[in-house]
Formats: sequence, C-alpha cells, structure tokens
Amino acid sequence: MVDIAVMGAGSFGTAMAKVFAEATRPEPHRVTMWCRREEVAAAINETKLNASYLPDTVLPDNLCATHDPEEALSGVGLVVLAVPSQSLRENLAAWSHLIPDDVTILSLAKGIEIGTLKRMSEVVCEVADVPDDRVAVLTGPNFAKEIAKRQPTLAVVASVDEARAQRVQYLVRGDYFRPYTNSDVVGCEIGGATKNVIALVCGIASGVGLGENSRAAIITRGLAETLRLGTALGAEPLTLAGLAGVGDLVATCSSPLSRNFTFGSRLGQGMTLVQAQAAASGQVAEGVKSCISVADLARKVGVEMPLTEAVRAVCYDGVPVSNAINDLLNRDVGGE
Amino acid sequence: MVDIAVMGAGSFGTAMAKVFAEATRPEPHRVTMWCRREEVAAAINETKLNASYLPDTVLPDNLCATHDPEEALSGVGLVVLAVPSQSLRENLAAWSHLIPDDVTILSLAKGIEIGTLKRMSEVVCEVADVPDDRVAVLTGPNFAKEIAKRQPTLAVVASVDEARAQRVQYLVRGDYFRPYTNSDVVGCEIGGATKNVIALVCGIASGVGLGENSRAAIITRGLAETLRLGTALGAEPLTLAGLAGVGDLVATCSSPLSRNFTFGSRLGQGMTLVQAQAAASGQVAEGVKSCISVADLARKVGVEMPLTEAVRAVCYDGVPVSNAINDLLNRDVGGE
Repeated sequence: MVDIAVMGAGSFGTAMAKVFAEATRPEPHRVTMWCRREEVAAAINETKLNASYLPDTVLPDNLCATHDPEEALSGVGLVVLAVPSQSLRENLAAWSHLIPDDVTILSLAKGIEIGTLKRMSEVVCEVADVPDDRVAVLTGPNFAKEIAKRQPTLAVVASVDEARAQRVQYLVRGDYFRPYTNSDVVGCEIGGATKNVIALVCGIASGVGLGENSRAAIITRGLAETLRLGTALGAEPLTLAGLAGVGDLVATCSSPLSRNFTFGSRLGQGMTLVQAQAAASGQVAEGVKSCISVADLARKVGVEMPLTEAVRAVCYDGVPVSNAINDLLNRDVGGE
Repeated sequence: MVDIAVMGAGSFGTAMAKVFAEATRPEPHRVTMWCRREEVAAAINETKLNASYLPDTVLPDNLCATHDPEEALSGVGLVVLAVPSQSLRENLAAWSHLIPDDVTILSLAKGIEIGTLKRMSEVVCEVADVPDDRVAVLTGPNFAKEIAKRQPTLAVVASVDEARAQRVQYLVRGDYFRPYTNSDVVGCEIGGATKNVIALVCGIASGVGLGENSRAAIITRGLAETLRLGTALGAEPLTLAGLAGVGDLVATCSSPLSRNFTFGSRLGQGMTLVQAQAAASGQVAEGVKSCISVADLARKVGVEMPLTEAVRAVCYDGVPVSNAINDLLNRDVGGE
C-alpha cells in the first residue's frame, strides 16, 4: 500500500487522484488530495463529490481531501503536483519543505514558465531543490471528464530515471488508464506546452469559418514548429510523434472539451481577449499565457514558430484575427 | 498555357480539376475531365455542374468534360489520375498508349493494390511503362467538398524528381490551394494508404461509445504503426509527421466528411459489413479494402500493425468489434 498526495483539486487533479485510488493493486493506495480552499476539502470528504470541477463523479472511499499541506504530504510515497503551470513555483515553494526525502515528485502541469522560460520539471527541481532524476512528468491526450468516466485512456510517464518512470507507471496503471514510459522529459514537456497554443489557432480558424482541411493543416504545421523547438532543446522527434506530441495535440485541437479550442473560436468570431475571458467565466485559456513563454523560448533558441507568434500578435498586439490568418495562409510554401 | 487531363470525375477528381482550372497563372490552364459515363460528361459541359458528386459547385469555363480518353489526353502537358486505387491498373491499361511522351503523370489515388501490394506510383510505372521520375503523387488533408468551396488547403506534391514536383507545384498552386514539395514518394503514399484504415478504427471506437482520449490514442498508435511500415519500406519519418501523414490522418479520423470514419462508426454501432455497405448507398469504404493490402504488406516486411489487423479481423474474420477493441486496449504497454 502506498500513500499518495495529489496537490491540487482542479478537474485534472481530481480525475488523476481518482485514477490513483482506482489503480490495479493488491491493496489500494490511500490518496489524499490537497485543496486550496478549506470548504472544498470538507465538501469532498463529506459528499465524495468535487462539485465545482467534476460534479457528476463519485470519488472512491480511499480518496480523501485536506486543506492542510502537511497532512497531505506526511509519510507519502509519491507526490503529484496538480496546480496550474504559472502558479506551480509559488505553490511548491510553500510546501517543498514538507515533501519527504527521496520521494518521487510527479508533475501534471503543462506549460513553460513566463519569464524564466523553464519547463515545469525544471521549476520543480529548482524550487524543491532536488536532482532531475527525482522528478517525473505525466502527459498525453487526457481529458479529465473522460478519465473520470473511466474512458480508455493512454498516457506517458517520463523521467530521466527510467526505473522511476516504470515505478510511477506501476503505481498509476489500471483497467482504463494505461501509461507508457519514456525517458525524454524535454520532448514530453515541450509537446504539452505548445499544444494549447496550437489549439487556440485551430479555434480561431474554426471561429472565422475555416474547415477541416485548414484545421488539419494547422495541426500539422503546429507539430512542425513543435518539432523545431523540441529538437533545438534536445527532444527526440519520436516523442513528439507520440502520445505527448501528436496525441495531446490532436485531442486539444479537435474537441469541444478543450478550453483552448473554445477560447480561440470566440476570438475567431470577433471577441476581444477581454470579451472571450468574460465568456469563459473569467478564465483565460492556458494557451493565451503559454504563447508568451513559448514564443520567448523559440526566439531565445533561434527557432521560427509562426503559429505561436500569430497567437501572441492576436492576444497582445491588437492584430485582427483575419490579418493573422491571412499572413499564415500566405506564407511561402517550398519543400515540406 | 498548359492543357491538363484529369482522368476521373468523382468528387476528388472534380475538385482537383477545378483547382487546376483556377490556379494562379498568367493564362489559365485548359482542363479536360474524363468521365466514365458519357451522360455525366454531357451534363458537366451543359450545366457546369457535376450533380452526383459536387452538386453545389459551379465549375469554371476553362474546365470541360469528355467521355473519350483520346480527346482528354491529346496534346496535354500533364495527366492527372483520379480513379479509385483498386481500379487504377485496369483504367490506366486502357489509356496508357494515349499519354504523350515525357508528360508528367500525377496520381491522386491513395491505397496499396490488393494482391501485388504495390503503391499507386508503382502501378503507374508498371502499367504506363515509364520510369519513376515521370510520376508524381498529390496527397494531404484534402476533403473535396472543402476544396470545391475554396477553403484554404495545404497539400504535398511528391516525386523522386524534385524538379518535376516543383513544376507540378507551380501548375497547381493558387489562392486557396497551397502544395509543398517532397521527394519522399514512399512516405507520402504509405501515409495515404494507412489513414483510411486508422479512420475506420476511430469510427468503430466512436460507434461503441469511446471518447476523445481514446480517439487521440488510436490516431497516435495508428501513426506509430504507419511509421513502422513506412520506415521499413524506406520512407522518411518526417514525411509521416507532415501533411501526408499526420495531416491526412487527423482530417480523416476526425471529420463527419470522412466516409471511412462514418463507415467505421456504423460497424461500431453493431452493423455487419453488408449492413454498413447498404447504409452507405452500396459503397464500401476505402479502408475496408486497404486493410487487406496494408496488412499483407506489413506481414511481408515483418512489421506489427495491430490496428490494421483489428480492422481486417472485424471486416473479414467475423470478430465482434467489442472483442477487437478490448484486445487493442489490453495490449501490453511498456516504453513508448
């Protein structure tokens, strides 16, 4: 039996806490989910529901919640970080002294930190003061709502320490959740960071009335710029052709379940950033933040990412979506 | 001005004939479309509509039709083959003596010939008795209905003769149709052949009620088996990460415009092959044929293609879809 802390109780954190609690094991894990708000923790313990994020999902009995990070982290064998990418540093700084020595830290966050241009696993190493072989990341085409309904799902667990990735794979796998392992952490994290930005472009294109041919072209050219960035940073191309790259990209770019796609389609229909944010209950899509750090990272390593630059121009430089789309369509085509 | 023959007047042939007629040129091409049925040719010339295949699309004045292959092919500078893959050999054998010397032959057909296990460009070389540098192929995420509506579309023109690919690119490009060039003919043709089979699996999964996580997983694992087959045959992995691979796969696996996806979803809902064919006005989806030749080719070169084998088992060996899906889901997961 392993005690597991899932730090964060948004929809994906909750869904993954449930996956750990339902993993195929001789004895089930005891999973504790840390909630930022005390009343959410109390409600989860009382009703077995996380009403704000996964209202239709009854959580299993071996999953409980707490507002106290010390209670969540005490004596655990695995720490799962499920807070948003741009607040990971701040959150982790508050807890890192509570994480037991030698325990694996698994990051679920997807993004590049604005300003430092670090990947999430790099932020973890820096803030928790651990070597990179203590950290693993989980990624892939994984909508929380479907995982919560036990829909068959493939994922990737990556760590530079292959044995650690296999240990996490063993702890999390179950009937409906099947993770592969990979040692290419850079590739897995770059795929997770760029896909939200490309999904915004797909959404914008859909919003202005473009069809399936254009969407498939955007996904493919988005993959091409992801490959350029990833390989410049040392990623394996095959990782980006896999679940962490193509898989996650396809899911995020195609589904009404994707907040980034939906947000983009509102921009494409003519809403401003502020209007689109209001229509999304005040939330800004992850890709709207990531486009800044991804574009900065691309410039730093000297790689062209025209789709990412277009999103940034639409969101922050007042470029009309029609101009941005036309510029993309009229780029010179040569050899692929 | 170049005279162009488009041999075949199905929806894709008609859409591409229109693209050639509307290409960005100092003087427009004269495009002649060969129709198998004389009354279709007469109707196109009279009404400028191809009522059976693209009923809402008015064809341009510099595009005409004929039932006579000799009339279509006489004096042309480019021959475009737009007949179905499994009847390409028979059709081409009837016309090949009419194709002028040294003219480029551009194949639009996607598939592997059943029995011979040849790619379409190999069939062309054999039947027309031309060297492989006379042949080019056009592929990518290209739904005919969207092309006909001038939706922005990217494509790939591939030939082992790069100058020939560039010449075709120059002849076909226009405001809304933008082809890249590639010299990897094998990769382009393998991507086009497998995607219909993978789309059937996505359709089957959708038909049995699986969601976006599963669909993205199928697309990714489908790409992985396409990469295995392609590289075993000498294809470049990057071609399959591009428009001819990922792009075409994503479009075919996601859209209700895809006949293969729709056909698969009927199988997933419990229809037999015969019932699904009846529901599709008697037409069998391309992937139902291709799964035979793709699976045979994979066996011949010693490559595992579990998704393709599953489609074949469902279509021809009476394996229930639920068993096939379960077998796929329960495959061992290790390193990605």
